[in-house]
Amino acid sequence: MAETLGSLASRFGCELRGDPDTVVSRVATLANADERSLSFLVSRQYRADLDSTRAAAVVLRSEDAGSAPPAMLISDDPYACFARIAAVLYPEPAVPAGVHPSAVVEDGAAVAATASVAANAFVAADAVVGERVRIGPGAFVGPGCRLGTGSRLHANATLVRAVTLGERCIIHPGAVLGADGFGNAMTDEGWLKVPQTGGVRIGDDVEIGANTTVDCGAIEDTVIEDGVRIDNLCQIAHNVHLGAHTALAAMVGIAGSTRIGKRCMLAGQAGVTGHITIVDDVVVGGQAVVSKDITEPGTYAGSFVAEKARDWTRQVGRVRRLGALFERVRRLEKDRE
Amino acid sequence: MAETLGSLASRFGCELRGDPDTVVSRVATLANADERSLSFLVSRQYRADLDSTRAAAVVLRSEDAGSAPPAMLISDDPYACFARIAAVLYPEPAVPAGVHPSAVVEDGAAVAATASVAANAFVAADAVVGERVRIGPGAFVGPGCRLGTGSRLHANATLVRAVTLGERCIIHPGAVLGADGFGNAMTDEGWLKVPQTGGVRIGDDVEIGANTTVDCGAIEDTVIEDGVRIDNLCQIAHNVHLGAHTALAAMVGIAGSTRIGKRCMLAGQAGVTGHITIVDDVVVGGQAVVSKDITEPGTYAGSFVAEKARDWTRQVGRVRRLGALFERVRRLEKDRE
Amino acid sequence: MAETLGSLASRFGCELRGDPDTVVSRVATLANADERSLSFLVSRQYRADLDSTRAAAVVLRSEDAGSAPPAMLISDDPYACFARIAAVLYPEPAVPAGVHPSAVVEDGAAVAATASVAANAFVAADAVVGERVRIGPGAFVGPGCRLGTGSRLHANATLVRAVTLGERCIIHPGAVLGADGFGNAMTDEGWLKVPQTGGVRIGDDVEIGANTTVDCGAIEDTVIEDGVRIDNLCQIAHNVHLGAHTALAAMVGIAGSTRIGKRCMLAGQAGVTGHITIVDDVVVGGQAVVSKDITEPGTYAGSFVAEKARDWTRQVGRVRRLGALFERVRRLEKDRE
Repeated sequence: MAETLGSLASRFGCELRGDPDTVVSRVATLANADERSLSFLVSRQYRADLDSTRAAAVVLRSEDAGSAPPAMLISDDPYACFARIAAVLYPEPAVPAGVHPSAVVEDGAAVAATASVAANAFVAADAVVGERVRIGPGAFVGPGCRLGTGSRLHANATLVRAVTLGERCIIHPGAVLGADGFGNAMTDEGWLKVPQTGGVRIGDDVEIGANTTVDCGAIEDTVIEDGVRIDNLCQIAHNVHLGAHTALAAMVGIAGSTRIGKRCMLAGQAGVTGHITIVDDVVVGGQAVVSKDITEPGTYAGSFVAEKARDWTRQVGRVRRLGALFERVRRLEKDRE
Repeated sequence: MAETLGSLASRFGCELRGDPDTVVSRVATLANADERSLSFLVSRQYRADLDSTRAAAVVLRSEDAGSAPPAMLISDDPYACFARIAAVLYPEPAVPAGVHPSAVVEDGAAVAATASVAANAFVAADAVVGERVRIGPGAFVGPGCRLGTGSRLHANATLVRAVTLGERCIIHPGAVLGADGFGNAMTDEGWLKVPQTGGVRIGDDVEIGANTTVDCGAIEDTVIEDGVRIDNLCQIAHNVHLGAHTALAAMVGIAGSTRIGKRCMLAGQAGVTGHITIVDDVVVGGQAVVSKDITEPGTYAGSFVAEKARDWTRQVGRVRRLGALFERVRRLEKDRE
Repeated sequence: MAETLGSLASRFGCELRGDPDTVVSRVATLANADERSLSFLVSRQYRADLDSTRAAAVVLRSEDAGSAPPAMLISDDPYACFARIAAVLYPEPAVPAGVHPSAVVEDGAAVAATASVAANAFVAADAVVGERVRIGPGAFVGPGCRLGTGSRLHANATLVRAVTLGERCIIHPGAVLGADGFGNAMTDEGWLKVPQTGGVRIGDDVEIGANTTVDCGAIEDTVIEDGVRIDNLCQIAHNVHLGAHTALAAMVGIAGSTRIGKRCMLAGQAGVTGHITIVDDVVVGGQAVVSKDITEPGTYAGSFVAEKARDWTRQVGRVRRLGALFERVRRLEKDRE
C-alpha cells in the first residue's frame, strides 16, 4: 500500500518536515532504506545512520531531527507512530468470509457470516465464532469455545475446550489453549488424574505466541485480562491470572494459581512458582525464579551472566567453600578478642 | 451428571454425614460453591471457607469436619476422593466410533471398530489403533505406531514414527512423539545427520502435556514407564528412560540417554544433562540443573530466588569479588601467625 | 536394506578386517547386537562391550580394534562413518510425488512435479515448492514461502509467511517458522502491535526441531545460515542471525537481533539476550545466560549444579550473608592496622 507523507502526517498527528506529496510504500531500517521507504529513529545508537540513509522519510523525535533530507515525521513517540504507519502500509491481506469446503463445522456451531474458516479447520458443535473472526488452516475450535469479534486463530492452533477469546485477539500457530491443567493426586496405585473442569477466559486485544500453552482451570477459570502480550513457547498453568497489559517474553513459565498484576513484564525464560502473587508494575529479569510473593513494584532479577567456563568453575568452587570461609573469619574474629 | 451423596459415598467408600438424597451436579471451590455443588477441603489454608460455603457437600478429612451444614463426605484422602467424584460428575463426552469422512486412513492400517478417528486426522498404513482409542482432529499417527486400548491422541498431536502407547494414555494437543533425536556427527563439511532408528515405548496410564516433545531413540527406544505424568512444553531426548509414576512439571528438559527412576518429581524448568542416572524417589526443585548422577533419594535444588535488581546486582558483585575475599582472609590468617 | 561389509568398506573408504561377504541389515548397540547387526565404538566407556558383542561388524578406530570377531570397519571417524552406513541401511521411505486429494494447494502456487504434498496439507497461492520437496500431513505453507530442492516439512509444521528454506532442510513436526516477532510499543492505551514485515531466510542443510519457533524479522529478515542444527522447543526471535554450522540444543532461547557466529554450540536451556553478538566457535553451557557480547572463542558457563536441598539452602544463605562477611573482613583488616 502506498501513502503520501501528507496523508500519514495528518492521519497520525505528526508534524511533517518535507514534501507532503512524497509517496512511501514500504518500511526499512535507516541503513537499508530506499527512496520509497519510510524508516524511524528511536535509539540514539542509530543516530549516525540518519545522515546517510536513502529513506524517503523518517519518523523521529523533534530533538533527533536533522537538517537535510530525508523528509521527517516528527512524533513524541516515534516507535508507536511508526507502528501505526506500518499497519497502513502493510494491511492484513483480505480473507474471504465463509467456510472452506475442506473445513469441518459441526452442526450447531454458530459461525458469523463475516467469519472465515480456512481449509481443514474444525469448529465444534457448540462453539461460537464471532464477526470477522479468522480461523486458519488446520486450526481447532473445541466445544464451549467462543471467539469475539475480529479475533484470529492462526494455522494449526488449538482451542481445546471452554476457551473464551475477547475481541481482536491473535493466537499464533501451534498455540494450545484450554488443555487440561496438570492436576494429579498421588494414590497407592500411582497418580490419579484430577478432572479439570474450568475454562480459559481471555480479554480483548490479547496476543499469544506460537506454541505457547495456556491450560484450562482446575475448577474455576484461567484468566488473561485485556491487552496482555505473551511471546512464543510460554506456559500458563491452570488458574493463573494475568493482569491487563502484562507482557511475557518467550519461554516464561507461570505455575498454577499464581496471580500476576497489571503492566508487569517478565523477560525470557523467567519462572514463577505456583500459588503466589505479584503486584502491578513488576519487571522480572531473564531466567529469574520468582518463588515468593512480590509485594512492591520494581525490577527483580536472579540470574548470573555466563563467564569463561574456567572462571565460572572457580567461582562456583569459591561459593562451595563459603561455609569454610565463614568459619575462618569466625576464628579470626575470635582470636582478635 | 447429577448424583446423590448416598450413591457417591457408597461408591467411593466415604462416611457420609448428611442427607443421602442430596443431589450434586457440579464441583466448585468452597468460596464459589452453590447448593448443587460438591467442594473439597485439603489445605488448612481454606479451613475458614468451610463455615461460609454454600456447597451442598464437602469432601474432607475426619479431623477437618465441621459441625453444621454442608453435608460431609469423610475420606482419608479427600483430594483423590474428590477427583474420583469429579470424574463421575463430568464424564468425558461420548465420541461415536468410526472414521470421519475427512480423515485419511491409509490402506493397511488396523483401526479397531470401536476406535474413533476425527476430522482431518491421518493414520499411516501399518499403524495399529486399538479398541476405544480416540484420535483427535488434525492428529497424525505415523508408520509403525501402535495405540493401546482406550488411549487418546488430542487434536493436532503428532506421533511421527514407531511410537507405542500402552493403554489409557492421554497425549495432549501439539505434543510431538517420535521425531528424530538430535544426533549429529561433526565432519569436515559440517554436521552430518545420524539416522535415528529407535522408537518410543510408552507404558499404560501415561499423560503427556501440550506441545511436549519426546524424541525417538538413536538406536534403541526412548522409554516412558507406566503412570508417568509429563506437563506441557517438556523435552524428552533420545534414549531417555523415565521410571514409573515419575512426574515432570512444565518446561523440564531431559537430555539424551539419561535414566530417571520411579516416583521422581521434577519441578518446572528443571534441566537434566545427558548420560546420567537419577535413582528412585528424587525430587528436583524448579529450574535446577542436574548434571551428575543422583544416587540418593531426597530433595535437590539449585536455583536462586529473584530479588530486587539492585540487591541482586550487589550480590552478584560480591560473588565476583569472592576470589579477592578469600585472598584477604588468607593474608589475615598469615598475619596472625 | 542389507549390504555386504565389502561394499560398505569400499563405499565409505574404511579398512575391512573380516569377511567382505558378511551381510548386515540393521544397526545396534554393542550390547544388544545380533548376527545381522552393525555396531560402533566411539567412547572408551563401551570398550568392554566389544569383547562380548554378537554384532556381525563394528565400526571403530584402528587403536580400538580387537583381535577377534566381530568383523571390523576401521575408520578415523567411526561415528560419522557409522552415520553414513546407517543412512544406507535405513533409507527414507519413498514417498510418491503429487498432491494428495485432501491437500489444499491454492491457485497460483508453484509445486514441482516431483514434490509431494500430503493429506490435509495447505500451500498458499504464491508459495514455491521445489523439486522433491516433501510436505507432511497437516503442514502449512503460507504466502511468500519458498522451499528449496529436497527440503522436508514434517506433519503439522507451519511456515507462516515469507519463509525461504534452502535445499535439503528438515523441519520437524509442530515447528512454527515465520510467525510475527514479539514487537510491541507501549502507548497510553496499552501495547500497540508493531507490524512484523520481515521474513525468515534459511540456508541449505538446516534442521529445525519439533515445536521450535523461528519468528519473522521486524523489518529485515531473521537469518539462519547453512548447516545449522536446532533441537526441539527452541525460540529464535526476530532478526536473530545464526552463523553456519551452529548447533542449539533443546530449549535454547535467543532474543531479538542477536547475532551468533559460526560453529557455536549452545547447550540445553541456555538463554541469550537481545541485541548482542557472539563470535564464531563459542560453546555455551546448559542453562547459562549470555547477556553481553562474547568476543573471544571458547567455552562459557553460568549455572550451578543442583545439590541436596538442605545444602543448597545453606549455600544460598551464605551468599546472602556475603555483604556482612565482606564487612567483617574489612573490620578485621582495619583492626590489624
